[in-house]
Amino acid sequence: MKILGIDPGLRTTGFGIIDKQGSKLSYVASGTIKTPDADLPQRLKVILASVSEVIRTYTPDCSAIEKVFVNVNPQSTLLLGQARGAAICALVSADLPVAEYTALQIKQAVAGHGKAQKQQVQDMVQRLLQLPGLPGTDAADALAVAICHAHSGDALAHLSALAPGLAKKGLRVRGGRLVG
Amino acid sequence: MKILGIDPGLRTTGFGIIDKQGSKLSYVASGTIKTPDADLPQRLKVILASVSEVIRTYTPDCSAIEKVFVNVNPQSTLLLGQARGAAICALVSADLPVAEYTALQIKQAVAGHGKAQKQQVQDMVQRLLQLPGLPGTDAADALAVAICHAHSGDALAHLSALAPGLAKKGLRVRGGRLVG
Repeated sequence: MKILGIDPGLRTTGFGIIDKQGSKLSYVASGTIKTPDADLPQRLKVILASVSEVIRTYTPDCSAIEKVFVNVNPQSTLLLGQARGAAICALVSADLPVAEYTALQIKQAVAGHGKAQKQQVQDMVQRLLQLPGLPGTDAADALAVAICHAHSGDALAHLSALAPGLAKKGLRVRGGRLVG
Repeated sequence: MKILGIDPGLRTTGFGIIDKQGSKLSYVASGTIKTPDADLPQRLKVILASVSEVIRTYTPDCSAIEKVFVNVNPQSTLLLGQARGAAICALVSADLPVAEYTALQIKQAVAGHGKAQKQQVQDMVQRLLQLPGLPGTDAADALAVAICHAHSGDALAHLSALAPGLAKKGLRVRGGRLVG
């Protein structure tokens, strides 16, 4: 199963693809999509086209995207929302299932606790995927989302069998994926 | 020239198409896109697919979309931003030029002042397009964006020739369209 992870942003969108065979994870590819200093519609077009190109190239089976935080600056929140919307459009256009995770869930999945720093996330991503060097921060975040999805799938399908009341806590599991 | 106007929203996205021949405007079509009560990616998929379908059906030459206001609730701002991002993705995917206008600009264009109420916008849209009945509010807002673009194109191309310093005031005109 190939998982595409996305760390959305208006200037820089990170992407990372990992392969999951049983409980073994391996690195496939990662990178960043940078938008030009153009007007908003053109920037969204670049995000849409580039994520679509990544999907065509690496043919993932499913996808996971970070739930963005609400910025102190409402205009930034609005811009980030639009960028994230464009990335999700590329995913659903390709008929990929899309799972969403908060930064907290992602950090817990890769570093074991929700307060991990950027550097720790990079270190853990490098270790978990046995990379020869430290990945860049945007690519590391995207790979971390994919890893989170790989782990949550197992963990939550299991948990969901054990505790069907999970949905009442605002979490939903669909096809073994956390979607709430 | 056929102009597609979009009033974006996560639950309801309004669309309106008008035809402009010289200074004469006429109504082509309008309607609303309602998203199901599903998870966010599925709702964005509906917006993307439906706006794309409107474009295929009515083959507009250009488009205009309302600049959304920042909500008091940051989560709502984030959701609205993602919905708007999906609508813009449909427009740029079809290679349509996209102009953006604030609610203030739109109200000024159709009702002559920026504090016009919803009802006044509906009345003016009905009058300007000689509609047999009052359009619904979402469709009226979308038609109003299209009318705003039809007017601004003329007004601003003219203004831009007279006052090249306009760009310094935070407004930009490209191909006769206000994009700032």
